[in-house]
Formats: sequence, C-alpha cells, structure tokens
Amino acid sequence: MSPPKLPWGILGTAQIARKNWRAIRNAGNCTVAAVASRTLDRSRHFIQECQADVPMDTAPRAIGSYEELLASPDIEAVYIPIPTGLRKEWVLRAARAGKHILCEKPCAVSTDDLREMLDVCREHHVQFLDGVMFMHSRRLARMREVLDDPASIGDIRRIQSAFTFNAPPEFYEGNIRSQPALEPHGCMGDVGWYCIRFSLWAMQWQMPRHVSARIHSANIVPTELSGELHFDDGVSAGFYCSFRTHNQQWAVISGTRGYLRLDDFVLPFAGDTVDFEIQHMDYRVSGCDVRMVPDAIRYSIPEPSHGEARSQECNMFRAFSDQIRSGSINPEWPRIALQTQLVMNACLDSARQDGKPVAILYP
Amino acid sequence: MSPPKLPWGILGTAQIARKNWRAIRNAGNCTVAAVASRTLDRSRHFIQECQADVPMDTAPRAIGSYEELLASPDIEAVYIPIPTGLRKEWVLRAARAGKHILCEKPCAVSTDDLREMLDVCREHHVQFLDGVMFMHSRRLARMREVLDDPASIGDIRRIQSAFTFNAPPEFYEGNIRSQPALEPHGCMGDVGWYCIRFSLWAMQWQMPRHVSARIHSANIVPTELSGELHFDDGVSAGFYCSFRTHNQQWAVISGTRGYLRLDDFVLPFAGDTVDFEIQHMDYRVSGCDVRMVPDAIRYSIPEPSHGEARSQECNMFRAFSDQIRSGSINPEWPRIALQTQLVMNACLDSARQDGKPVAILYP
Repeated sequence: MSPPKLPWGILGTAQIARKNWRAIRNAGNCTVAAVASRTLDRSRHFIQECQADVPMDTAPRAIGSYEELLASPDIEAVYIPIPTGLRKEWVLRAARAGKHILCEKPCAVSTDDLREMLDVCREHHVQFLDGVMFMHSRRLARMREVLDDPASIGDIRRIQSAFTFNAPPEFYEGNIRSQPALEPHGCMGDVGWYCIRFSLWAMQWQMPRHVSARIHSANIVPTELSGELHFDDGVSAGFYCSFRTHNQQWAVISGTRGYLRLDDFVLPFAGDTVDFEIQHMDYRVSGCDVRMVPDAIRYSIPEPSHGEARSQECNMFRAFSDQIRSGSINPEWPRIALQTQLVMNACLDSARQDGKPVAILYP
Repeated sequence: MSPPKLPWGILGTAQIARKNWRAIRNAGNCTVAAVASRTLDRSRHFIQECQADVPMDTAPRAIGSYEELLASPDIEAVYIPIPTGLRKEWVLRAARAGKHILCEKPCAVSTDDLREMLDVCREHHVQFLDGVMFMHSRRLARMREVLDDPASIGDIRRIQSAFTFNAPPEFYEGNIRSQPALEPHGCMGDVGWYCIRFSLWAMQWQMPRHVSARIHSANIVPTELSGELHFDDGVSAGFYCSFRTHNQQWAVISGTRGYLRLDDFVLPFAGDTVDFEIQHMDYRVSGCDVRMVPDAIRYSIPEPSHGEARSQECNMFRAFSDQIRSGSINPEWPRIALQTQLVMNACLDSARQDGKPVAILYP
C-alpha cells in the first residue's frame, strides 16, 4: 500500500502558484490541501479558477490568512511564492510550525537572512528547497552523465548563460518585481538566480573565488545586468539577465574538447522531449585549404516540457514529497540555495561598486 | 575589356597566406605576382607548395627579402601576414613605397602605432584594410538587412560572442602567438579581435563609452580573457576568447523583440550555404498553464564557405582589388580597423588593472 499523499498548503496566489497547483496535482504522491491568501475571497477565487482548469479530486480548503494555514495540523508542507521582501518572516513561521518548505527564488533579501532561515529550518527538522524547476528535469541528470564522460567536452573552462524577458511598461507600475521593498534584487533575483544556479551546477557546486558584475540598466532596482564568476585555474562563468531584452534562456558550457549548448535551460520548449547539443567542431587543414567542420551530437530526452507527470515541475514536487516521506532531510537542497544566494548578493555588491571584484567567503 | 588583374605581393609565408593565395587565385580580378620571405628558398618552397595545390596561370616570382618586393614597380598591393610585433615597420615601408595594404589582425601593438601607420597610408594615398574575412561575407550583408527590419529583433540590447581554440602544448613552444615580442596581445589579438569587430559591426560602429576585461589565464601573454563593452543606454557586448578552450565561434545579438544567433561567425562551416537564425520564443499562458514556445526563422544564404569565388575570403580580395581599380580610397576600412584596435587595447588596459573600467576616447 502506498503511503498517503503529502498534503501541501500554498501561501499566496501568485501566477507561478497556478503552474505549481497543476504540478502537485500531477506529481502522484502529493495533493493541495489548502490555499491561503490575505483574504478568504482571494483564496476561494484562486481555487475556483484552478479547479476549473485542473480539478483536484477534493477541492482544497480556502483559508483567509497565512497564520491559519500554518496552524493547520493536517498540512505537512508549504509552498511559499510570496514576494522576496516578505519571505523571511513566513519561512521562519512555517519552520517553527514544523512545515516543510518549498520557497520561491530568490530565497531572501540577504545571505544573512537566508542563513537565519535555514538555521531555523534545521532546528525544527524541516526540509527547505528553492523552486528552481530545471534542477529536477531528467535533462539535467542526462547532461551530468554526458559532462562526466571525458570524451564529451573535456574539462570545463567557461560557462555562459542568458535569461531575459522584455517587460512591458505596465510591469514597472503594477508588478511587484519592480518594487524594491518586495523584490529588491530586480532582474538579478528574478532571472539571474537561474543563471547563477546553472553555473554552480555545471561546476558541481565549486564556489567562485570572486565575482564581478555591472548594472547596465536600472529603475529603482536593477533591470539589466551582466556578471562573471571566477573559479580556480582561470575557469569562469559569464551571465546576462534583463527585463529589457526579449525572451532568451540559453546556456553554453565550453570545455577543452567541445561545448554543450541548450536554448531553453529554464523553461523547456513545449513538446514531449527536451534537447541539448554537444559540438566538437574542428579545423581540417590540407595544403592551402582550411575548413571548419561541425560535428554536433543532439541528445533528446523523452520528457514532457510541461504539466505532465514527468515534467520538471512535477518531478520537483514528487522529489520533495518523496524526501519528506523518507523521514530524512536532504541537506544539499538548503546548501545550494545558500550558495546561489551568496553568489547573487556578491554580484549585486560588485555591481554597486562599478564592477569591483568581490571575494566569496564560503563556507 | 576588363581592366588588368591587380598584381599582389605576399610578404611572408604564414599558414594564413596559403588560404589567401587561393582566395586571390579565385577572386577573378587579381593575381599573386610575387611572394617574399626572409630567404629566397623559403619563398620558392611556399610557391611550389601552393602551385601544387592551387596553380596560378603564371607562377609568382619568388623574392628573398621584403625590401625587394616593396621595390618592385609591378606590385600594386601587398598582403602582410607577418607577426604583429613586426607589422608596423613593414606597413610604413609598404605605404611609403606606394603599395596598397591588406594587413593581418591585430593591426598593431598599440593604438598609437596604428594611428601612425594609417596616417602614413593616407599621406601616400594607399588603401588600408585588415584581414577580417567575415566582414566580406554575403551573410553579414544579409544579417544587416534583417537587423535593420524592426520586426526582427527590435533594438539591440546585448551582444555576446566567443571565439576560442585549445592550443596544444607545442603551441606555446614554437608558435609566434605565444611570444610577447611578436604577438604581445595573445588570445586577445588573435581571436578576441574578431569578437570586438563583430560587436562594433552589430552596433553600426558606435563606440562603447568604456570597457572592462579580465584575464582568466596567461603565460607571458593572455591566453584566456573575457571582456565587456558598455555602450549608451545600457546596451552592452560581452565576449570570451581563449587558447585553452576547444573551437567555438558563436555569436548572439539580442534585442527587444528577439535574438539573432550564428554558430560559425568567423569561419563558416564547410558547405555551399551559410546560415543564421532569428529566434522569437514566447510565453503562452492560459489558466494554470505556462509554456515557452520557440519560433525560429533560419536564413540560409547561398555562399560557399570556402575557396570558391563567392567565399568570404575571395570576396575580401575582390572587393579590395575593385576598390583600388576604382581609383579612390575607402576611408571606412582604416577607420574600423582603428576602432577595433582602440577597443582591444582598452580591454587589455582594463584586464591589467583587474577589470577596472577604461574609458574610450574616440575620435
């Protein structure tokens, strides 16, 4: 007999929570038990809309306050998509209430805040995970296997990534992502987080020695930024994140023997498989003749890009729920969240000093 | 009746000169009249090898010194592939001898040197061009048309490029490209020049306000480096060049509506057409459902990648020879060489100061 489904509570009704409602619905080992918002009406409305689109067997309970949800003994795990500026308080409260936590990114305003949040999670034996879906894709696992094969790209020398979207004018008026009290990191927290996470993943969680970054555009918060992470032996990672540039989400990992490329590292393109490519282009010289010959291998992994039970977001909720049911805490999840936060805040520190290198002290 | 073919002299027998022998042979409006090296034997040997591979109707004259070639009244234009550290002297001498000059890149050790070289070219009414073949590809012209269409990628916000190869150990012993007196700029001059040129081309020769760069690896000269060019209104260009990373030569130009990508911006992949891609990926949201849908347009331009009469290197020699036959000097060619040199040297200045921003004063 399979264990009972893990009951989730959702704190807040952000757009991303709709996608995760569906992911919890399809994960198989968990269910949405309750949704809390600052008003009961808002929670009801959210549940109605999601039920119409992706019905649950039993409609979740609508709750009119976050406190009440955290006080509910039937809730074992909470998903926290509320704004970054408010997250610390609710992560601390959730941990003290003994709820396991899946927290949206960026996890906190500062590294110190996140350390405090993770300390309290540890004290109360609750799991912490940030909501970076691509970490749970089968593609990433396959990429690791391929990168671990010395014949693929050899030793990594450079990682380059870009994640951007072009925010419409109304974004800067209504959206929380341009309000410094709620989302102080601007594009760095909203999209740059993924670039840093991807770079650290590629480096197998080795930390850079120092980082540098430049803000290209800003209103009150950074809206366009590029940065560099400097690892041992001259290995480096560059990234570009922006609210001013049309959708792109590509990454290249270059090594001594070839490079890996993917065009959709954050949100896989709609379809039933996900892809990446290894390129080994080479010169052919004979007499006067120099040619550059491409030699690409395309890897396609059968994985629905979205919604279905094997999509990265479903995998994320399934893996989290399995972890809780296992009775043990996965210490890597909070650790990589902290590493990402630390590098992100150091990049912002550098950017505020016109690109001056900022040392990374870790652990 | 077509005008007589422009007679070229080649100063030096570098590997790249073999490719350009073929290009001159196939350009249609010019011919190799003489090859000079520091010894007559070496010139003879070079001519023998090239004649075996790509015969000319009449074998060029072998000459045992650069001076003698420059003193030959039948030579109208010279191609100068000798090392950067020696280039200034021979460009000055060639200009004073009234020879038009196609000069390999990087053109000079310093911007001041190049200014002096270009001044002397102007005084003596000789054309100057650097040997950046991709500037003469039909693909570049087509890309300009596409970029000029506001529906393609909109306003440019970011350019990213990488050009690298992984030098074998013997490279650092025998090759001039790791000898500071001959090639003081290391990877920055050898491969970074192309990244800067491509970025300035994309920006329609607008100059950055300042630049910053970091050396990741070096022996006596930089062997791995990344840099950033900072233009007005937050527009920026990042690049990575290296002797330590396997072949890559990709570029992305991102704008407010989409991005342009090509995988072989320097040396087109072997074949009869060259390609680039415009990507307009977009989010589709409905209910709980957020998908990322790619929407790529692939442009294929019928252009042999190599050797034949329409290849970029043939186009380069044909365009140069036509320019000379027109009787007028093209002032853009020396100007963009100077702009590239100036940005390159500023990047090196920044890299030597740990990434400190360096202002660009131009003109």
